Amino acid sequence: MTQTKCPEEPAGRDRLDAIFNPRSVAVLGVTATPGTVPYDIFYNILASGYRGVLYPVAPGKRSISAVRAYRYVIDVPDEVDLAVIVFPASVVDKALEQCGQKGIKAAIIISAGFREVGAEGAKRERRIREICDHYGIALIGPNCLGVINTDPKTLLNASFARKMPPRGRIAFLSQSGALCTAVLDYARAKSIGFSKFVSFGNKAGVTEIDLLDYLHRDERTDVILLYLEELRDGRALIDAARRVTRGDNPKPILAIKAGRTPQGADAASSHTGSLAAEDAICEAVFREAGIIRVQSIEDLFNSAILLAYQPMPAGNRLAIVTNAGGPGVMATDAAVSAGLEMPPLTRRTTDRLRRALPASANIKNPVDVIGDARADRYVAALEAVLADPNVEQVLVILTPQSMTDIDDIARGIVRVHAGTDKPIACSFMGASDVASGVAILQAAHVPHYAMPEWACQAMADVQRVRRWRQQRPEEVNGDLAVDREAAAAILEALPAGYLREDQALEVLKAYGFPVPEYRLCRSAEEAVAFAEQIGFPVVLRVVSPQIVHKFDVKGVALDLGDAGAVQEAYQGIMDNVARVRPGAEVLGVICRTLIPPGHEVILGAKRDAVFGPTLMFGLGGLFVAVFRDVTFALAPIDTGTAARMVREVKAYSLLEGARGTEPADVREIERCLLRLGRLVADFPRIAELDVNPLIVGPAGKGAQVADVRIRVD
Amino acid sequence: MTQTKCPEEPAGRDRLDAIFNPRSVAVLGVTATPGTVPYDIFYNILASGYRGVLYPVAPGKRSISAVRAYRYVIDVPDEVDLAVIVFPASVVDKALEQCGQKGIKAAIIISAGFREVGAEGAKRERRIREICDHYGIALIGPNCLGVINTDPKTLLNASFARKMPPRGRIAFLSQSGALCTAVLDYARAKSIGFSKFVSFGNKAGVTEIDLLDYLHRDERTDVILLYLEELRDGRALIDAARRVTRGDNPKPILAIKAGRTPQGADAASSHTGSLAAEDAICEAVFREAGIIRVQSIEDLFNSAILLAYQPMPAGNRLAIVTNAGGPGVMATDAAVSAGLEMPPLTRRTTDRLRRALPASANIKNPVDVIGDARADRYVAALEAVLADPNVEQVLVILTPQSMTDIDDIARGIVRVHAGTDKPIACSFMGASDVASGVAILQAAHVPHYAMPEWACQAMADVQRVRRWRQQRPEEVNGDLAVDREAAAAILEALPAGYLREDQALEVLKAYGFPVPEYRLCRSAEEAVAFAEQIGFPVVLRVVSPQIVHKFDVKGVALDLGDAGAVQEAYQGIMDNVARVRPGAEVLGVICRTLIPPGHEVILGAKRDAVFGPTLMFGLGGLFVAVFRDVTFALAPIDTGTAARMVREVKAYSLLEGARGTEPADVREIERCLLRLGRLVADFPRIAELDVNPLIVGPAGKGAQVADVRIRVD
Repeated sequence: MTQTKCPEEPAGRDRLDAIFNPRSVAVLGVTATPGTVPYDIFYNILASGYRGVLYPVAPGKRSISAVRAYRYVIDVPDEVDLAVIVFPASVVDKALEQCGQKGIKAAIIISAGFREVGAEGAKRERRIREICDHYGIALIGPNCLGVINTDPKTLLNASFARKMPPRGRIAFLSQSGALCTAVLDYARAKSIGFSKFVSFGNKAGVTEIDLLDYLHRDERTDVILLYLEELRDGRALIDAARRVTRGDNPKPILAIKAGRTPQGADAASSHTGSLAAEDAICEAVFREAGIIRVQSIEDLFNSAILLAYQPMPAGNRLAIVTNAGGPGVMATDAAVSAGLEMPPLTRRTTDRLRRALPASANIKNPVDVIGDARADRYVAALEAVLADPNVEQVLVILTPQSMTDIDDIARGIVRVHAGTDKPIACSFMGASDVASGVAILQAAHVPHYAMPEWACQAMADVQRVRRWRQQRPEEVNGDLAVDREAAAAILEALPAGYLREDQALEVLKAYGFPVPEYRLCRSAEEAVAFAEQIGFPVVLRVVSPQIVHKFDVKGVALDLGDAGAVQEAYQGIMDNVARVRPGAEVLGVICRTLIPPGHEVILGAKRDAVFGPTLMFGLGGLFVAVFRDVTFALAPIDTGTAARMVREVKAYSLLEGARGTEPADVREIERCLLRLGRLVADFPRIAELDVNPLIVGPAGKGAQVADVRIRVD
Repeated sequence: MTQTKCPEEPAGRDRLDAIFNPRSVAVLGVTATPGTVPYDIFYNILASGYRGVLYPVAPGKRSISAVRAYRYVIDVPDEVDLAVIVFPASVVDKALEQCGQKGIKAAIIISAGFREVGAEGAKRERRIREICDHYGIALIGPNCLGVINTDPKTLLNASFARKMPPRGRIAFLSQSGALCTAVLDYARAKSIGFSKFVSFGNKAGVTEIDLLDYLHRDERTDVILLYLEELRDGRALIDAARRVTRGDNPKPILAIKAGRTPQGADAASSHTGSLAAEDAICEAVFREAGIIRVQSIEDLFNSAILLAYQPMPAGNRLAIVTNAGGPGVMATDAAVSAGLEMPPLTRRTTDRLRRALPASANIKNPVDVIGDARADRYVAALEAVLADPNVEQVLVILTPQSMTDIDDIARGIVRVHAGTDKPIACSFMGASDVASGVAILQAAHVPHYAMPEWACQAMADVQRVRRWRQQRPEEVNGDLAVDREAAAAILEALPAGYLREDQALEVLKAYGFPVPEYRLCRSAEEAVAFAEQIGFPVVLRVVSPQIVHKFDVKGVALDLGDAGAVQEAYQGIMDNVARVRPGAEVLGVICRTLIPPGHEVILGAKRDAVFGPTLMFGLGGLFVAVFRDVTFALAPIDTGTAARMVREVKAYSLLEGARGTEPADVREIERCLLRLGRLVADFPRIAELDVNPLIVGPAGKGAQVADVRIRVD
């Protein structure tokens, strides 16, 4: 509960329970005019069948809709669990203060006019946070649509949504209030029910992180949907998501993170005033946290209904049953493109299908029961493929032919569905002709998709959830032999800016990176002597606090084979630098052995504004520059993540030895990634760090750091 | 009309007009049982308001639905333009024969049981084709749903679709009959109308190509939608598409080509018995023909309604007007990801918006009129952005807030829409709450999308059409200086298989490729003498009809600097080959100069089963192997296509001189692609040809062929 502004309060469900399951609710600021938010909120609670006691606070009114009204909340004679505040923004603080005085522990501020409208509003929002902190009030909002709980023990619609949604196993959390109204209307048309529905608005108090933890414990919620525009503490969100999505009681989280393009992020920022994380990082980080990221509301619910109402399939193998070849082909394309497998059916199954279907039917997967199929044929085919050990889920496609008994087929599917533990999805294509059949399916919680392609996409998302749960979380490797003090001595002493190469190399050495033997030599003679000690050929690289890009100033000499070459190169470097950067303070050169050629990889680290320290991996040169063939992760990482990062880049096949290259020492790359993760997690001052390149030898032969750049701030 | 099997018949609209606008129709094989195809087809024509005369042919019946029936079609006392045949497959040939005898020039065979059911059916289909050829009958089908023409002059529903679709400007052509029923139902729910609706089934007579040409001339059609599973003559389809999609009377073609994955292609093939083109080639070829390829029925209609009912925008710049920030952000993400631009609004526009909207509104693009906006605010904002010279199209998003006057807003948009020449699309999010507003928009042909993301995708497809029309088709370069006879002397004389390197190089030389000077040397002495003539260093490469992969047998020696090295290398190659391939007949070696390093590119050609000769381009080595960073085109190509091919690969930036590389002689690559296109178009025997690599020098310095492989069959 680090996110709420009341750290002194005990964590846990009690505080949020007052929001979702209050025994009594006061609505502050009610008016008597239907069609306005202040009235509608009150009326929605009254009309939703709320099991507790409702108190309107409406200065100057005796009653609202025949319910006794109070002038101030402190006038309410009984204990109040939850205050819903709809007063204009300018007086919200006074109302909230009174709630605190009355000992109310939970509030929803519906009113807008806070941080989202600029400096004046931000000031008001700060004041509200202070009051909540002072009284220990758990706050939803401000600037939100409200909260809905369909639990029959509570039945609370504390929102200005027009209708209470049907009950279901899906929870929806949204930063956008306006989106909620569209989502409720959309979901109702598809018979999608909700357990909890929360518009959390400016999240001045309770955040999505608190809500995720609450819903994780909520017995009425199986799937959590999240619409987010602003990530304030990315790290805490990821931690919460990991808690929720795996372990003993895993629940999938599907999320839209709007603002994935720079233009979208700009729009989100002018709308919420939020910080923007780099989207590629966000993408990777969500994946590492088990959050299924989707791009649209349609995708969100397409996947949610499958996760909420069907069992988890044992694998990714899909059979399709269709009465139309064309849609069967299109669905096959979509399934395979989304990573599902279309297995061959067993001999036993094809025999069974051959007996049950006419000769012109296609008894291979996708199974075509042919245009004139009626319910008996659909049921027979569906039962046959479900019994096949190669099949782990089934998609049923129907097109409305003139002889198709659509409702009977729907009922047949529902019957078969009740007797199987394999997931079934349907696509009855069309609209009005198939509407009654679709309604039969939806009433029985058989997921239905207007387009077969959407079913395939949803099934692919379920596979992401399945794979994530199978993935064993490993301990973040804490026992790397690192010399933290040695690194700290350098990193904590320096001013903001780039480290000199010798300092940067010292830091890497302290964390166990394979740094070639080197010395900062302050004269040609010293360089020659050191070169003779370590053996030729060597490399010289200028060292100057003012010079970051050594090649630009011709400050590097490579492959120096003897003392004369070193002597000459030293002088050459000094001359070049003096000419190109006359003002630079030159300390000398790094002299080190020439690293033999190998696979060049890049290990990067960057402190993201939202997520904190992150890692990047890619193959050197063109792979990163031209193809952006890189992977990201939050630092620190565990060994499993290190292995995934290396294997996720497309060019990984080269490290494995494809195309005549020698297999690289991938284990050493993984170890370096672990060290780098540890390093940047230990030192938050590190803003950027690039090992570029790390030159990797053949398997078992290690790697060496050829260049490094570290920036602290 | 090369596709129909009656080449002796005159091309043109007359023959297809008998299908779409017959003055009289006979239905052959009608029964009296409603709910069966033979009755429904007859009844649909009768009930659709058909303007001509309808004759049921029903042996043994006096009348069908009170219409005088005939025993045989030859008994019909009047002239018949179109025969619709619903007899069982086994007797279709006899019925068709009678049609021929009666002089009927057009037929639709609805009946199934032909090529799609195997050998017996294929035989029946051949017989039908023979009859059509003999009598010059234009045939739709067999195995189809039929044909619909909504033209009020005709009003023909010669199909077993349940309902006549509303009239509209969209034509739909489908190889799948079952899909048609779903599409008609789907489209009706969205108020989408059609001009013509054709299920062409097995296309034994009239093909999609004939239909494209017909619809191109059809004044009632603006947009053509095509669902295809089987491409029989890819080249003819492409030629037709180019005729239709540009020129004086351009009409967009949107197509689904099912079977894009190998598994999907398998499914399509077991369903239609069709050949499969490689999908990457299909993708490229469709693009080069101006066909907008989409993946699903939803995408097809999303884009079609925008193309059919909105003007072509002047460019890709989009403004969004929304009453909800979140959906505005999501739509911005979707728009930018799809390649649309979200321009800043002019000062004048923002001033105007500031005056019209409340202070809390966002007057930047996306414009947020805020949740409590009513019609006045929507109209003001919409008018303001439409007047902005930076804005070329507008997306209006609405979420149903409690104060949102949805229908008034819809009417306001319709009014503004009538007075602008910029396209408008809408997304009223939700379902039942917004339904009446959506109906108002749809009735006025303002395209509506349930999800804003879909609107953005459709707008992006419109941009593809716009760019295609702007693209100036260039003459295929026919004046390349090629020596066709020299190439023919080699290519036409050889048996099937790989050409020897010296033969392959001769072929390339004949077509003007930059081939380094070389000689087939049959002894070490000859090689030394030739090397001294052309200058060192040189390369030796073994020549043997049995050896395709020279490196595998150590048959190549590079960078030979003097006579001794050549002498030694020659003997070494002979020894290696004798050891590794003792049976190979060795003719000697190719001796040529060592080509200096440069950019390595691959120029490939392959004869595709469906499209004929195709070209491929990519950068050498890893770019093709790891990233599949390649482009395709149909051969021959014009100069514009050559330029596009080179520029389409991601690694093109390297050829331009990115990352410190020298800019390559891109013009020479383009010329080589033109030559290669000419070569493989001239010689259909060439099954495969790879110039790999072509080593490209700096701009203006040309390129040289380093290796080539040609296979003929």
